[in-house]
Amino acid sequence: MNNKKKTTIVLFSGDYDKAMAAYIIANGAAAYDHEVTIFHTFWGLNALRKDEHVEVKKGFMEKMFGKMMPRGADKMGLSNMNFAGMGPKLIKDIMKKHNAMPLPDLISMAQEQEVKLVACTMTMDLLGLHKEELLEGIEYAGVAAYLADAEDGHVNLFI
Amino acid sequence: MNNKKKTTIVLFSGDYDKAMAAYIIANGAAAYDHEVTIFHTFWGLNALRKDEHVEVKKGFMEKMFGKMMPRGADKMGLSNMNFAGMGPKLIKDIMKKHNAMPLPDLISMAQEQEVKLVACTMTMDLLGLHKEELLEGIEYAGVAAYLADAEDGHVNLFI
Amino acid sequence: MNNKKKTTIVLFSGDYDKAMAAYIIANGAAAYDHEVTIFHTFWGLNALRKDEHVEVKKGFMEKMFGKMMPRGADKMGLSNMNFAGMGPKLIKDIMKKHNAMPLPDLISMAQEQEVKLVACTMTMDLLGLHKEELLEGIEYAGVAAYLADAEDGHVNLFI
Repeated sequence: MNNKKKTTIVLFSGDYDKAMAAYIIANGAAAYDHEVTIFHTFWGLNALRKDEHVEVKKGFMEKMFGKMMPRGADKMGLSNMNFAGMGPKLIKDIMKKHNAMPLPDLISMAQEQEVKLVACTMTMDLLGLHKEELLEGIEYAGVAAYLADAEDGHVNLFI
Repeated sequence: MNNKKKTTIVLFSGDYDKAMAAYIIANGAAAYDHEVTIFHTFWGLNALRKDEHVEVKKGFMEKMFGKMMPRGADKMGLSNMNFAGMGPKLIKDIMKKHNAMPLPDLISMAQEQEVKLVACTMTMDLLGLHKEELLEGIEYAGVAAYLADAEDGHVNLFI
Repeated sequence: MNNKKKTTIVLFSGDYDKAMAAYIIANGAAAYDHEVTIFHTFWGLNALRKDEHVEVKKGFMEKMFGKMMPRGADKMGLSNMNFAGMGPKLIKDIMKKHNAMPLPDLISMAQEQEVKLVACTMTMDLLGLHKEELLEGIEYAGVAAYLADAEDGHVNLFI
């Protein structure tokens, strides 16, 4: 048993901006010496996808899903997508101009800071995502493991 | 005063997938012996609607709302609706294939596990929903009751 | 160190109905003597904008953003916008009919109750929002200050 504060985030959303918010809070909490977990479920799993195509055996439905969903953090869309047509590209340009970190860098930073990145196995099964298609160094778990982390947590968020 | 851990979820969203996430977490927490409450507010109330038409006296606006909003969990849409046109039907087919529980079953399971399902009375009033239109065995309360549950909670989520 | 319970809300969303939910919970918690903070980030910042145009020096991109984003709480859209075409106007009419408080009034009430309203400085920088454009009496901070509030909190929500 340790005395570290715990921050546990469920990342459900597949939106670039919401994932950014999740990772900014996670990196901040890690810098303040919290034990941090991001549990990626449903569309949030896309943030953990590798950006190249990975050859794995899939059924028709799973193949289709794999094609339709964004391949990795950099390809995710915005929650406010139709907001005057301003796309992720515009946001990224602005972030660059202000030296803000893009999402893939925020994810690497989280891994360096030992934020625990977890992929929800139930969703992987549903969407037909294989371990080979996801980033290295992440963990795999279900809702029981999430609750074990969250129930002693200080900051629990659903994003 | 008991020593059970508490999980308290605000279900604001009327999306099928988000409601699924809420109920999966709730059922998991109940299985781990938490005291669990789901407080249904705004569009989240639709998860508690009966799926048949119920004859109640309403004004014009309330009637309109009643018609426009999905009648029960099974009729709710997806948060990622336009995601390549993949509708709730596709998700449900995939869930069936993987033996995942559909939302109405998750709700019944929650009731069997004595998860407290609460309908926000303020929203019921706003949207013109009557008790007769909602599932049996639920409770009715406002923000004060929610806070009383949440302030001693271990896992508090807004979904 | 005091013994007050703490409620800390991240308002990420720029939706009128979600902001309402945030402010209703915040006002409720303040009434129950919690120390309450709403940390406005990304699109949630729009709830803090003054409704008149404020003359400040901006670059092209910042000017564009300023024009595209809703100027203040009253101009925000609904999360369920396309829900049978029912716009914010309809919701506001219904709220009036039921004597529910519109969002700008909920914000004033929060300020009277000494809810701490914080604008995320990182987002202000990204979106090119200046202090002169935001409501009086609010605070300015970053993720570190948010975490300091949240880590001792009882009710932490991401909306």
